[in-house]
Order: sequence, then C-alpha cells, then structure tokens
Amino acid sequence: MIHNFNSGPSILPKEVFKEASEAIINFNNTGLSILEIGHRTSLFQAVLDEAIATLKELMQLDDGHEILFLHGGASTQFFQVPMNLLNENETAAYLDCGTWGTKAIKEAKLYGNVEVVASSKDKNYTYIPKNYTIPSNAKYFHYTTNNTIEGTEMLDIPQTNIPLIADMSSDILSHVMDFNRFDLIYAGAQKNIGAAGVNIVVVKKDILGKVSRKLPTMMDYRSHIENGSMLNTPPVFAVYVCMLTLRWLKQQGGVSAIEKINNIKAKLLYDTLDSLPIFRATVAKEDRSKMNVVFVIDDENLEKEFLASCKENGMVAIKGHRSVGGFRASLYNALPLSSVQALTDLMKDFANKKG
Amino acid sequence: MIHNFNSGPSILPKEVFKEASEAIINFNNTGLSILEIGHRTSLFQAVLDEAIATLKELMQLDDGHEILFLHGGASTQFFQVPMNLLNENETAAYLDCGTWGTKAIKEAKLYGNVEVVASSKDKNYTYIPKNYTIPSNAKYFHYTTNNTIEGTEMLDIPQTNIPLIADMSSDILSHVMDFNRFDLIYAGAQKNIGAAGVNIVVVKKDILGKVSRKLPTMMDYRSHIENGSMLNTPPVFAVYVCMLTLRWLKQQGGVSAIEKINNIKAKLLYDTLDSLPIFRATVAKEDRSKMNVVFVIDDENLEKEFLASCKENGMVAIKGHRSVGGFRASLYNALPLSSVQALTDLMKDFANKKG
Repeated sequence: MIHNFNSGPSILPKEVFKEASEAIINFNNTGLSILEIGHRTSLFQAVLDEAIATLKELMQLDDGHEILFLHGGASTQFFQVPMNLLNENETAAYLDCGTWGTKAIKEAKLYGNVEVVASSKDKNYTYIPKNYTIPSNAKYFHYTTNNTIEGTEMLDIPQTNIPLIADMSSDILSHVMDFNRFDLIYAGAQKNIGAAGVNIVVVKKDILGKVSRKLPTMMDYRSHIENGSMLNTPPVFAVYVCMLTLRWLKQQGGVSAIEKINNIKAKLLYDTLDSLPIFRATVAKEDRSKMNVVFVIDDENLEKEFLASCKENGMVAIKGHRSVGGFRASLYNALPLSSVQALTDLMKDFANKKG
Repeated sequence: MIHNFNSGPSILPKEVFKEASEAIINFNNTGLSILEIGHRTSLFQAVLDEAIATLKELMQLDDGHEILFLHGGASTQFFQVPMNLLNENETAAYLDCGTWGTKAIKEAKLYGNVEVVASSKDKNYTYIPKNYTIPSNAKYFHYTTNNTIEGTEMLDIPQTNIPLIADMSSDILSHVMDFNRFDLIYAGAQKNIGAAGVNIVVVKKDILGKVSRKLPTMMDYRSHIENGSMLNTPPVFAVYVCMLTLRWLKQQGGVSAIEKINNIKAKLLYDTLDSLPIFRATVAKEDRSKMNVVFVIDDENLEKEFLASCKENGMVAIKGHRSVGGFRASLYNALPLSSVQALTDLMKDFANKKG
C-alpha cells in the first residue's frame, strides 16, 4: 500500500487516474485519444465548459468573476498580476509570509512600488503576521493563503477596501471561503485542482484595463477572457484532468464536505504530533496549515531512522522541503484518511520504540 | 478505421498513447501515477533528461545550443523572443508569410522596431516571398518555417549574418535541417514533438543577456537554462509525452528516416490533387508544405459532399481552417502512409463519380 504525501504534483483521486488513462486510448468513445483531438472541437469545448461551470459552482462565484485556465503555474502569475494591475508610479501592498510570497514581491517590484505590510521572515516564516495595516491608497493587497513549504495557513480573509488578490495554489477548494471577496485569485492546478501544466485565474473584470503599459497579448487577462481561455492551443490534457478532478469533488459533496474530512485528517496528525514528545511541529499553533503539516525530530539520527521507516511502509514524499528540513506531510483533498491513519500509527509505533 | 488529419493537437504514435495511458495508472512500476510524482524526483529528472538528450541527438545540436521545455505555446514566444533580445531603439527583421508570422510581428512591435522584409499578404499568403534583403544591421531575422494554416513551407534556410530565429512549430523534426545555423528555435509541442501544453526552445546562450530592460524571472531564458527547465513545476505529463514521442522517432531511424516517409506521403497526396481536376491545391507549387496540404473544390456543393464523404469514411479534421476554407490534411510524422492512401483513394473515387 502506497501513501502519497507529495506536496505537488500530488495525489489525485483514483477515479481520475482511471478515467484519464482510458481517455488517452479512447476519449468519450470517439476512437481518438484525448491527446489527438483538436482544441477547437465541440469535444474539447465540452470539457472546458464543464471545468469552468464546476469550478464556478464549487467556489460559488458570482457573475462578476471570470474563470480562466492559463498556461504556466503560479510563478507566471507573480509577474502577470502586477504587469496587468500596477502602474510604475503606483504602490501595491504585499504580505511577506513565505517562500512564494517573497517571489511574488520580487516580480512586482519590476512593475511598480511594493510596500511590504508585514513579514514573518524574522522567524523563518513559522507564523502568519498579524495586526498589520493595509494602506488604503495601495493599488491592491496580495497574500498567499497557504505556505506549502513552511506549513502555515491563513484561513481568515483580511479586511480591506482595496482590491484583494491571493495566491491560493496549495489550499484552494480545501475549505469553504467567500471567494467573491477577492478581485483576483490564482492557483497552480497541481494540488487540489488537477495536473501540473495549467493555472487557474479567477478575476473580477472591472479591475482590468487600467494600466498604461502595453501588454503582450498572451499576458493580457482581457484577451483570454474574450477568447474563453482559447486564445491559443490550451494545455488540453491538463485541463481535462482538472475537469475530472472538479467533477469528483462535486460528487463528494463539494468544498464543505471535503473540508470536514480535511479537518479530521489534520486534527488526527496534529493531535498525534502534540501527544508524542519525540516529534515537534514547527509552526505557531494558531497558524498551522491543514494542507501541509511540517514537523521535525530534534535528534538527527532518529530523523533518518524515521524517514527510512516511512519508506519501508510505503510513505512517499514525507521528507521536508530542502529549505526547511525535517518532514512534511501534504494532506490534499484526494489523500484518503486511511493514509493519515497509517502515518500516525507509524509515528506512535516509532515513538514507543524510541521515545 | 479512423484517419486523423488534425492540424494540432494531432495524431501521435500508437505506442505513445499506450505507454502514456499505462503510466497514468502505474509509472515505471512505482505503483504511482505519472500525474502524482514530484517533479524534483529522480523519476521525473530521468524523463526530462531523456527528452533533452534525445531531442539534442535528433536535431544533431552542438554544445553551444541549450534545449528548454517551457510552459505555454509558440504564442508565448511571439513576445518572449523580442522581450529577451530586442531593445526599444533597435530593429528586428521579420518575414511576413502567414497568420503566425503576423502575430509574431504584432508582439515584437511592443518591444522595439520591426522591419518587415517581405510579405505574401497580397495573395493571401499562398506563396513564400523570395529575393528580399535581410538588413545586416537588424538585431535578428525571424521567420516561420511552415505555415500550418495556409499550407506553405520554407525548406531552405535563409542566408544571413545576423542572428537567425525561427518558429518551427508545425514542421520541426519532419525533415533534415542544419539546426545549428539558428540562434533561437521555438516550437509548440503539439504536432511532431508531443502533447499540447509545452513548448520547446533551442537557444544559443551567447545571444542572451544583451537587452537593457528588466525581465520577469519566468520570461528570462537564462533563468530556465540555469534551472534546467525546472525553475517552477514543469508541465510534467506533457514533457513525458514528448519524451515518449522523441524516443519513438529515434526508434524509427530519426529525422532522415521519417523525412523519407513524409516525402512519400506528401508526393502521393499532391500527385493525386494534380491529377484530379475537381480538386485544386491552393498554394504556389514550389512552396507547398509537406505537413499541411491545403486544397479546395471550386463547386461549393461538391465541397460539402466531399466533406460528408470524408466523415463517413473516418477522416477526422479534414476541413480547412476557418480563415482559408476548403480542406486541409495534416501529414505529421505520426500519420501513417495508409491514412494518406485512404484519403487519396477516396478522392479518386469521388472524382470518378462527380468529375
């Protein structure tokens, strides 16, 4: 039995693998592979339409928001967002709470001024900054909802009157949120949405068209809106896997249903961590991510032993990110509770023997 | 029996479909799907390494050329090329010989001056301009080797001393060329290389780093070279399908072997067209594309009848591009000769009945 704790690309539902595998041989009984159908056919249009409609339903988006499936990952959005929204003499406000936020800030500085409203760099991003002020004259406020590498998550939506922008790559669709409060949301698909190679952008149309710089056609959100995410050949198969994964999530009962299971999974793992002194969760208790659980064993030799034990027991990708060390268990939507159960059983067993 | 004449995404080898389908359930006997493995694992690194090494071998590239697998399609390269190579006060030379070249010119104008050295717009791009002069003081010369929509192809490489850049999306790896003569080559993968959602860039390192503008990290070719096409999460599955397709091409005997078959396929179809007065090939004889064969029937009713007859006989995507009309048969590497045989048989049969 394999338990896949990958941080992304990550586990997807078994049903999705099965259907995607079949579609590569024979898509929808056409006798054609999903890889060889034209993107401007009714066959693919139906896939894209279902992906957009299902995502809209799962996020309960109002009609002011457009959904785009774009090439590239969140890293492309780090510069595409300020390129579309920030004039050179204007200022955008950013929260610096992890590796990805830092990268987003670096790219925004190419296009205008950046005010970092708060940072948790002082403690290696092991907490989410609080009690900061978002300047009301900034063009927009940008933050990362979940820090995949450091293992912190911001569940509450910040209060502000300026346009709100979030990188939700690693926790989108994992818990109920008022997505309509955001002016722009982006997320690489390869965690809770589907396969790597496509990026979701949800954008309120009325914030666009206000910068003075000329935009390359492929970087202008408006061109993609006008062309219904078909400005050029889309990443057909990646979009198809998103559609299957979104359909699966809907069948599970949607975001509120999966949130209940996600809460049980995260509670089980954090409770186990807190009950076993040999292990130590690294981030502030109130900011713990439900998607990426980061922990260490302070004794380096025991750390190696536990890692080996994980491998023997089919636990894949439990090693922490190279910049943080220790362990990381990613508990995305498709990870079954039984995998968390197997991990916590192994932890208890290990603590009993070595504790 | 289905005959897939799609212009891209297009037919890929049956062996590729089979292996890709299996890898979605169980990749390399890992028990994991190719869709759920981490991109920074030795598992995926081996895929990327083989894709790069095989492409380098097939193209017989020297060590001065770097191979990148990037997000997006050729449309992204339309602006990424001038963004990386052209200063605002400098001039780049472009050949205007079809829809894609026109789009490339539009994007280049955002970054500097563009001199269009010649255009075949006067005759709806039904020929390749000749006898033009490439200015020796231009920053680079850009052209499209094959015009997917209009059905023309430029087999000879232009003589010039300035850096040479080509969009080879629809004929790369279809015939032997001295690829080392180019400073930058780009190609969307979804014709002769693999699946949609990834783009190949072959670049001579020494032309980079000479523009004064600041480049977003994701748009700077140098960042991708430094990170071995792993600056961010790559489109894992699309790269995997490229690797399988390139491996297949190598097994067929490489580019020179496939060129022989491509020549036979194209000759069979054009000879048939020329022998049947009811059909008419639309482009100048000397500029006919071996990849995309465009033709019409002058009688509109017969055109509809022939299209219906194609459908009945399992010919997929034989309808011409909406901007050109008529018919288009794309004869990419993976299309078997038997499909061209089936099409020409149908054409002869149709001409006998209606001619």
